Amino acid sequence: MSFSALDSDLVGPLLVAEGMRDVFSDRTRIAAMLRAETALARAEAAHGLVSPDLPLALAAMDPASLDVAAIGRATALAGVPTIPFVKAVQKRLDPALERDFHKGATTQDILDTALVLQVRAAFELLEADLEPTVAGLLRLAEAHRATPCVGRTYGQHAAPITFGFKAAGWALGIAEAGAALRDARARVCVASLGGPVGTLAALGPQGPAVADAFAHDLELAPAPMAWHALRGRIAETGAALGVLVGALAKLATDTAHLASTEVGEASEPYVPGRGGSSAMPHKRNPVSATVILAAHAAAKGLCVTLLDAMAAAHERSAGLWHAEWHALPALFGLASGALAEARRLAEGLEVNPERMRANLEATRGLLFADAASGQLARALGRERAHAIVERAAGRVRVTGTPLREVLAADPDVAGALEPAALDAAFDIAPAAEAAALWTDRGIAAVRALYPTL
Amino acid sequence: MSFSALDSDLVGPLLVAEGMRDVFSDRTRIAAMLRAETALARAEAAHGLVSPDLPLALAAMDPASLDVAAIGRATALAGVPTIPFVKAVQKRLDPALERDFHKGATTQDILDTALVLQVRAAFELLEADLEPTVAGLLRLAEAHRATPCVGRTYGQHAAPITFGFKAAGWALGIAEAGAALRDARARVCVASLGGPVGTLAALGPQGPAVADAFAHDLELAPAPMAWHALRGRIAETGAALGVLVGALAKLATDTAHLASTEVGEASEPYVPGRGGSSAMPHKRNPVSATVILAAHAAAKGLCVTLLDAMAAAHERSAGLWHAEWHALPALFGLASGALAEARRLAEGLEVNPERMRANLEATRGLLFADAASGQLARALGRERAHAIVERAAGRVRVTGTPLREVLAADPDVAGALEPAALDAAFDIAPAAEAAALWTDRGIAAVRALYPTL
Amino acid sequence: MSFSALDSDLVGPLLVAEGMRDVFSDRTRIAAMLRAETALARAEAAHGLVSPDLPLALAAMDPASLDVAAIGRATALAGVPTIPFVKAVQKRLDPALERDFHKGATTQDILDTALVLQVRAAFELLEADLEPTVAGLLRLAEAHRATPCVGRTYGQHAAPITFGFKAAGWALGIAEAGAALRDARARVCVASLGGPVGTLAALGPQGPAVADAFAHDLELAPAPMAWHALRGRIAETGAALGVLVGALAKLATDTAHLASTEVGEASEPYVPGRGGSSAMPHKRNPVSATVILAAHAAAKGLCVTLLDAMAAAHERSAGLWHAEWHALPALFGLASGALAEARRLAEGLEVNPERMRANLEATRGLLFADAASGQLARALGRERAHAIVERAAGRVRVTGTPLREVLAADPDVAGALEPAALDAAFDIAPAAEAAALWTDRGIAAVRALYPTL
Amino acid sequence: MSFSALDSDLVGPLLVAEGMRDVFSDRTRIAAMLRAETALARAEAAHGLVSPDLPLALAAMDPASLDVAAIGRATALAGVPTIPFVKAVQKRLDPALERDFHKGATTQDILDTALVLQVRAAFELLEADLEPTVAGLLRLAEAHRATPCVGRTYGQHAAPITFGFKAAGWALGIAEAGAALRDARARVCVASLGGPVGTLAALGPQGPAVADAFAHDLELAPAPMAWHALRGRIAETGAALGVLVGALAKLATDTAHLASTEVGEASEPYVPGRGGSSAMPHKRNPVSATVILAAHAAAKGLCVTLLDAMAAAHERSAGLWHAEWHALPALFGLASGALAEARRLAEGLEVNPERMRANLEATRGLLFADAASGQLARALGRERAHAIVERAAGRVRVTGTPLREVLAADPDVAGALEPAALDAAFDIAPAAEAAALWTDRGIAAVRALYPTL
Repeated sequence: MSFSALDSDLVGPLLVAEGMRDVFSDRTRIAAMLRAETALARAEAAHGLVSPDLPLALAAMDPASLDVAAIGRATALAGVPTIPFVKAVQKRLDPALERDFHKGATTQDILDTALVLQVRAAFELLEADLEPTVAGLLRLAEAHRATPCVGRTYGQHAAPITFGFKAAGWALGIAEAGAALRDARARVCVASLGGPVGTLAALGPQGPAVADAFAHDLELAPAPMAWHALRGRIAETGAALGVLVGALAKLATDTAHLASTEVGEASEPYVPGRGGSSAMPHKRNPVSATVILAAHAAAKGLCVTLLDAMAAAHERSAGLWHAEWHALPALFGLASGALAEARRLAEGLEVNPERMRANLEATRGLLFADAASGQLARALGRERAHAIVERAAGRVRVTGTPLREVLAADPDVAGALEPAALDAAFDIAPAAEAAALWTDRGIAAVRALYPTL
Repeated sequence: MSFSALDSDLVGPLLVAEGMRDVFSDRTRIAAMLRAETALARAEAAHGLVSPDLPLALAAMDPASLDVAAIGRATALAGVPTIPFVKAVQKRLDPALERDFHKGATTQDILDTALVLQVRAAFELLEADLEPTVAGLLRLAEAHRATPCVGRTYGQHAAPITFGFKAAGWALGIAEAGAALRDARARVCVASLGGPVGTLAALGPQGPAVADAFAHDLELAPAPMAWHALRGRIAETGAALGVLVGALAKLATDTAHLASTEVGEASEPYVPGRGGSSAMPHKRNPVSATVILAAHAAAKGLCVTLLDAMAAAHERSAGLWHAEWHALPALFGLASGALAEARRLAEGLEVNPERMRANLEATRGLLFADAASGQLARALGRERAHAIVERAAGRVRVTGTPLREVLAADPDVAGALEPAALDAAFDIAPAAEAAALWTDRGIAAVRALYPTL
Repeated sequence: MSFSALDSDLVGPLLVAEGMRDVFSDRTRIAAMLRAETALARAEAAHGLVSPDLPLALAAMDPASLDVAAIGRATALAGVPTIPFVKAVQKRLDPALERDFHKGATTQDILDTALVLQVRAAFELLEADLEPTVAGLLRLAEAHRATPCVGRTYGQHAAPITFGFKAAGWALGIAEAGAALRDARARVCVASLGGPVGTLAALGPQGPAVADAFAHDLELAPAPMAWHALRGRIAETGAALGVLVGALAKLATDTAHLASTEVGEASEPYVPGRGGSSAMPHKRNPVSATVILAAHAAAKGLCVTLLDAMAAAHERSAGLWHAEWHALPALFGLASGALAEARRLAEGLEVNPERMRANLEATRGLLFADAASGQLARALGRERAHAIVERAAGRVRVTGTPLREVLAADPDVAGALEPAALDAAFDIAPAAEAAALWTDRGIAAVRALYPTL
Repeated sequence: MSFSALDSDLVGPLLVAEGMRDVFSDRTRIAAMLRAETALARAEAAHGLVSPDLPLALAAMDPASLDVAAIGRATALAGVPTIPFVKAVQKRLDPALERDFHKGATTQDILDTALVLQVRAAFELLEADLEPTVAGLLRLAEAHRATPCVGRTYGQHAAPITFGFKAAGWALGIAEAGAALRDARARVCVASLGGPVGTLAALGPQGPAVADAFAHDLELAPAPMAWHALRGRIAETGAALGVLVGALAKLATDTAHLASTEVGEASEPYVPGRGGSSAMPHKRNPVSATVILAAHAAAKGLCVTLLDAMAAAHERSAGLWHAEWHALPALFGLASGALAEARRLAEGLEVNPERMRANLEATRGLLFADAASGQLARALGRERAHAIVERAAGRVRVTGTPLREVLAADPDVAGALEPAALDAAFDIAPAAEAAALWTDRGIAAVRALYPTL
């Protein structure tokens, strides 16, 4: 399995989007570190602080030629990977350039800037899946805006809604999480260049200008101050990923239940060989929901670690910065796997309107109890109406007689309501129309967040 | 203690801001529920759905006349407090109005809308402490922009900074968290009115208009769709509070260490009787840091609960909504107590520049090792310079001879550097100037987020 | 609501067992602090360190006469409640005794010992509910050891089990958690007496003997060393409570689903007025499951706080000890409420064997696919058998023809199996017998942990 | 980096013990799955259920010949790795044996049993580091049982202790966590064999006997019932690892602070090249503490995931079981890395008694304020004594005059205490003796838990 299931060759391919593996590979990390050093050299060369040959030499260096495993072994001794990395690069530089390399920078500058480059790529991957996911859910919402189905609260049939209303809710929850993620992205994609204690003192008064040029070269925002020990943006990013996974978990919770044998109102898109059981040849397990719900259970705790890391001491902490390494890439990994599966659901969910209709009738009219109570309340007041319908509902449960008939036979009801008014309470059309109205409103709200959809 | 220390009469006054206790009292909650019902009645009366007398009667009702304990006992049976609350209000209404009461709404509409009203008041309290906290830190930053002190990484002396640089970092971290909190506030202050399954079906085509009028009456944003089971905004709010407490914990971690006996560079504002010990008459314990760090340790876990609650099933979950009750008010309570103490620190921290100077000299010049290495690197290359200074630093540790002297006596150094260049490395002025530059930049960034400061 | 829903008069009665509120009230806490001081005075008097009149005076003092709110206000200044508490007690003592009071002890000794006294009482309350909960589940297991019902995996019908098998699993999970909780109780009920830095230096060589007498007086275990900053036992207790709530959450997850409208195999014990809806007169919401699942979502995060608190610095930390106040009482509160509701379920769950039978038939024989595949595998090998049955299952889904018939019509099957062998695969008896066997085994394992049941 | 830093070739070698990587590699996992299948075949052959050739064929199969990456790709489709694993093994079996393979078992049986085999090996690795860690700390405790040093509370100098007292506390905390871990190990090392729904129905009445033989073959405890959805033992194991890391974090917090520049009372064992900085040639960063504290920040959240997973639905959950894959191996990885570094500290911490002595004198006698107050209290009562010494302490801070002198000059003191009695209060010997006494007691308590030490 490896320590993280995401990194496992055995189960990782199920749990994480393939592209995300590349983004957070050691290879990519080393390349991003070299990219950061190159940007630093360019910025410093532009300010006359290092030889103009240095950035050229660095840009020409193939990151694949650096021996990750050897650097890793040296890291176990050194305590941070930057020192052996710097030495490895220096060995490949002309001695005349070597003295200028990594000038003014510190370990964490290179690692954090590399991290942010990876994070930016990771955001792009997520966004590439987010849009089609939301789009797929909007299509479901539009296609089924008027398809009646049971609304459920506390696991019980409550009152009718439409399936489109449900899908619009999924879309809205995910779109809002996606919008918050964009905000976090805008705030977190900041270059890090502060030197040993954040003041970039080795560069003197040119420090801020070099830092800005460094950020500009990497197309990152410049940092107002060094963020070696200001980790709020990282924690915020983690929380935004946690919220995204939470919004996907809402979708997964609902679809897994809709796909359950007794409910059967929807099922995950059929893919031959998917969701089977090594023992039970008939099984069609909800694999997408499984992956998402597992990610949800795992993501929450990782957010804790990033909040923890905010209490970093002074100019750099002993341990809390490193704690982020255990959490942030994994959060992107979990989010990517969950989102890839959510996209499958959004684009391919098999909806079963007949089963929805059958389920609407399963409780012999109890679904319309609220509406009946509303009609009665006009004549009898809310409290008495509620009590009468509650009593009638009990009779439906015991006798199996439909609620419509129980109420019609109740003298209190007969005295208070015309039969037509009672009939109106059992008409599904108004409930479906109300749901459709809100579906439209939800769709519009999603479009306001994702104008291209 | 009560279950939450925040609710304890014994330790609560230490741990939570007084005003916040009022905001989340049962009394306030009941009043907010009645306020929500009044707004509902107004919106419905305006649309001709209920008698215009109903909102008048509700607005005239004194929430203090409702018996919280009796409603609580009934809640233990009913499962949610709204049902006994609704009955208690109905009993006080004229029977002609009673039937119109709570029309179309569901339990969660009233509870969630009441919650949001409390949350808005809670945000206001936090903001009232946030501004002076940031302002106090900016004053520290400005006053000490050029006051040299030790920069520390991994708990070790690293290189010189200024105390203002440190204070600007605290201000920036807290200001960014405060800005993110404002975003969360704007997103979460949304009225809830969806009826049993979120479609407000009992109000028919007037549903959306009534929901908008309801929100307008409460000065809340109208909901695009019912959010009974879309809890991302609540989770995001919790995370933003967690991030705020994290930013305060950075301040507390630093000040507690600065106030430690051996460091002594700053101390919490002296208040007679504060921070004593029942056993040790000489103690001056850092009480503010203690409260903040305890809040940090507690807040993280509560964020988990709110992320958990996002996986709510269908139109309302059995348990996950209720889980929020265990977490969100407590997060506001923790944040308020931590922020009140942070404000004390920001406004009254006692800074000891003499002690800072003494500490700068404690390592006999090792603080300037980076600068010395930088000077040497010009002549010898980074790697060799680094090795020479590392070796010299070892000698300083063993012999106690100042680094300046050790280096001057080193033939490798003597051959490479003019004495003046070596002297320059041990001049604190450039380091302090670099720190001051970044302090100014940090202050400007904070002001961009808090323009009134 | 108060900050913690557990402390609320409005919703607390629903969420926490009444007795537990008393255990963790401020009143009880003050009384336990006075009890600890009395034990200290007794132990010191027995060793000739204080006047023998002191313990008599303390034992005679009515804790209710101490003004909690005044002590609380003073705590907000002092930073810990012990100092104002000590002063308040001293004021009531004869001056000749006052000087001996609290001798050698520190703040945390009194607070931690008081906490442990409360924790012991809290454990007793939990155990008083644990035994009948496990007993009730064992009765369900025995009564239904042979009552067939559907086994479900991934939310899908899988193969037949019995309802007793399911109940035995609940009992086993809860009984194991209960046994682990007893272990934690034995380890955590340790007196705290270390003085300012844990060495009880003020008592000199008599320190250890006094500490032992102190513990003995309170019927607590003596501490091998002061545990002011050794918090593993507290964290372990919290985790054990988290695991208990987790085991209850398994029960709640299952029963909530069994009670869902489409499944209907069991329902929470009917109590008039319970589980209704303010809007929907027909609702019977699963209140017990709701309370338990909310507790589960909240308990996890609190365990984090207690683990956090283990990294306490030196002889006492600034913040991490106080963090426990935010978490441990609440964990007991959550556990008590969840357990009280689990007991309701265990003692009163309404089981519906007819509905179980109906659900067994809902998939037209697919439940027996594993058995059929097993029969076929004898002749055709596992892989081919699995493939044949998988294909047949697809046909069942599409055509609605029972699996028994689809297989009988399959030439591959006909060639490989006698009709009697095929019939055998669709006989529920062997599955029910196997389940009953394991039910018995599970019951025996529970009884080994709870011999009195 | 890979998603988990533990799995990274770049930083993993720093953060995790090498042997643990092997235990949780995909290779080991596949081998353990094959080992489980072999045990199943043996148990079934012994009961005449499968051919006796099957276990021989499986035992002879080289797990390295199975293509992990190919199985992983198939897992992404199938949803669980067992199905492609079973198919891969079947392809290598004689067709006559293939039909008997995996008989009666389900996916989760094989994965969970393989996991438990890995967990057992992981426990062994941890125990191999635990004993020498505790032994090293006991040596420190014994060597320094009477070495005076400052006791610190809230980051402030409080009163004298000995360094051995501190080390004994570390040893006790870790030894207790280790003992609890042994309990968890005994409970969690249970074989899993339940078949599709836990009843092992395919094996009929022989089910329990086969399950017992299966467990016996693997030297695991037999399960009283299938634990596919009873995950308390896994959650308990995770919590025990969290508590262990917490106990190590206490050690790391303390040693990092002792190693800080201003304190300097201890430092991590010197290893050339360790703890350096890419920028600062003089740095000796506390790498061991860094690794441990990062593990602590990460471990807590993973415990949440395992508690989460306890609410598994029915006979197998969709997602919560899989969530464990994200958390349990990582917890072992974090614990192993933290423990390896703790062992380094325990075996090699460099202690600086001179610096301890110097620090004892840093506060000009304030450390003895408690003792002085105790002496005074005999004459003046506790409250007055406390006030006098508190006042005197203030004067020490302002004037720099030693407390001994300030008190001697105070007429209230002079009237109440003989000079000899005042001298006695400033004698460090009694404090050191009291600390040594408790050190011995702590050592004995550790030896009771680890009798071989």
